[in-house]
Amino acid sequence: MSAHHDPDNPPGNPGFLVFDSLAILGSGLIGASVLRAAKARGLLKRAAVWDPVSDHAAACVAPDAADVSAATAREAVRDADLVVIGAPSDVVGDVAAHIAPALKPGAIVTDVASVKGHIARVAHAAMPEGVFFVGSHPMAGSEKNGPGAARAGLFDGRACFVTPLAGRTDEVATARVGAFWAALGARAVIVSPDEHDEIVAGISHLPHVAAVALAGLLAGRPTAWRDCGGGGLRDTTRIAGGDPGLWLAILMENRHEVVHAIEAYEKELRALREAVESNDRRGLATILERAREWRSGLV
Amino acid sequence: MSAHHDPDNPPGNPGFLVFDSLAILGSGLIGASVLRAAKARGLLKRAAVWDPVSDHAAACVAPDAADVSAATAREAVRDADLVVIGAPSDVVGDVAAHIAPALKPGAIVTDVASVKGHIARVAHAAMPEGVFFVGSHPMAGSEKNGPGAARAGLFDGRACFVTPLAGRTDEVATARVGAFWAALGARAVIVSPDEHDEIVAGISHLPHVAAVALAGLLAGRPTAWRDCGGGGLRDTTRIAGGDPGLWLAILMENRHEVVHAIEAYEKELRALREAVESNDRRGLATILERAREWRSGLV
Repeated sequence: MSAHHDPDNPPGNPGFLVFDSLAILGSGLIGASVLRAAKARGLLKRAAVWDPVSDHAAACVAPDAADVSAATAREAVRDADLVVIGAPSDVVGDVAAHIAPALKPGAIVTDVASVKGHIARVAHAAMPEGVFFVGSHPMAGSEKNGPGAARAGLFDGRACFVTPLAGRTDEVATARVGAFWAALGARAVIVSPDEHDEIVAGISHLPHVAAVALAGLLAGRPTAWRDCGGGGLRDTTRIAGGDPGLWLAILMENRHEVVHAIEAYEKELRALREAVESNDRRGLATILERAREWRSGLV
Repeated sequence: MSAHHDPDNPPGNPGFLVFDSLAILGSGLIGASVLRAAKARGLLKRAAVWDPVSDHAAACVAPDAADVSAATAREAVRDADLVVIGAPSDVVGDVAAHIAPALKPGAIVTDVASVKGHIARVAHAAMPEGVFFVGSHPMAGSEKNGPGAARAGLFDGRACFVTPLAGRTDEVATARVGAFWAALGARAVIVSPDEHDEIVAGISHLPHVAAVALAGLLAGRPTAWRDCGGGGLRDTTRIAGGDPGLWLAILMENRHEVVHAIEAYEKELRALREAVESNDRRGLATILERAREWRSGLV
């Protein structure tokens, strides 16, 4: 991972941070929060929002602002300097290809999906000459979805991956996308799409799988057990309440890395189980200490 | 599991809910919170506190109250109607045997440890005639330890297992212990010690193991990964920050049930991994839906 962008010290270009016109395609939690955060910080002059559910788009657009709820994705992006595709990971490529003919020269397109390798290649290839795709992934999901859960502070202090293709993605476009996220309050982290997919398999997709498997196991036990759970059970399974459709797409899209991560997790569990089974107190103590030390460094 | 005690409707015995004198042995998070909760609700006239760390005991005792910080465990329990052993699960039996000769006739002894089968039998056998042991386990732990983390509201709305030995534990003593926890704000759940151990292996010890294994796996990855984690990673691993010594004792004490629970978890993970690996979208969707449905019922 490379150095982070400093929001207080953007490059000298006056247009570097502020985009005259932003288009949001897909006004779910992340898309709608990007709009709110950007407006709250004065980073844009006007916005166009499109969502397959037109009520969602309309709900994002303040009646007194110079913003529009667009009827089509192509209409939304026509004047945009920056396009944020807030769609699930399995449709970002299609959306990028669909809007490509309508993008204006110099436009930058990003997305917010949780898997980047495939998207980066497909979307890069779909862009016309002089238009740039730079993938993003803000680590700011929630088990709550939709524009109703959106808020301007969603990205505060969160990491946001920005994932250029080495030697192919325009470097100025990458820097502007990183600076945009930094200006929204996030900490931009520049990595390759493939490195991103390996990292999030470990820090996001595997935790989701671990929570789902725990919830799935307990779904087979009496309901009264669940009612006796404490804060540990609640926290450990929280993300299992996430949208199944969204997570189906994410896990399948990042299948290769997710399978590797689950295998590594199964290995950890086996070692822990064997330490318990064989009454290996020293071995179990080492495992518990190591986990506690790692966790204590998580801010 | 049997019906819960209703704190607003205790049996008619005037001494049923209020204990004249309470002894707390071990003033950690739970012991100190029991004292605070009981005093806040006017459930006792005086208390004696003993802790192997005498500063901890003294810290629990308000200077203006009729409470004492006792020099020894036996001194603390001499006048007690109710004794709460707030010690780790692997030493409760020893403490019960140690205080047995000093207990007054009619006294009730309980504990707050996370594993109950072994303790129930050992402590029951250690009690003199006319003195009663009834194990308890409030589901109100925290990754924070010590009297400094104690609070009167710790048990509000939490389940508290009360675990009599069928046909052996005195039924009035069981009812009084259940009513005491209910009066502290908890929901008393009466189960056998062995059923308790099976339940908590699933809803408490396995979540801990799942979090520890996840933290342990990520401890082997670059530190920068950890810094990119979102709220899901934070919540899923929170309990891995718990006291390793405490959890070593719990997991080893409940070894048999913990191993069964981990095996069942490994089976869930394998099924999930195989669905991802074989691109079985329908199978994975079913797993994700089932987990979400279970989690949505967790209050």
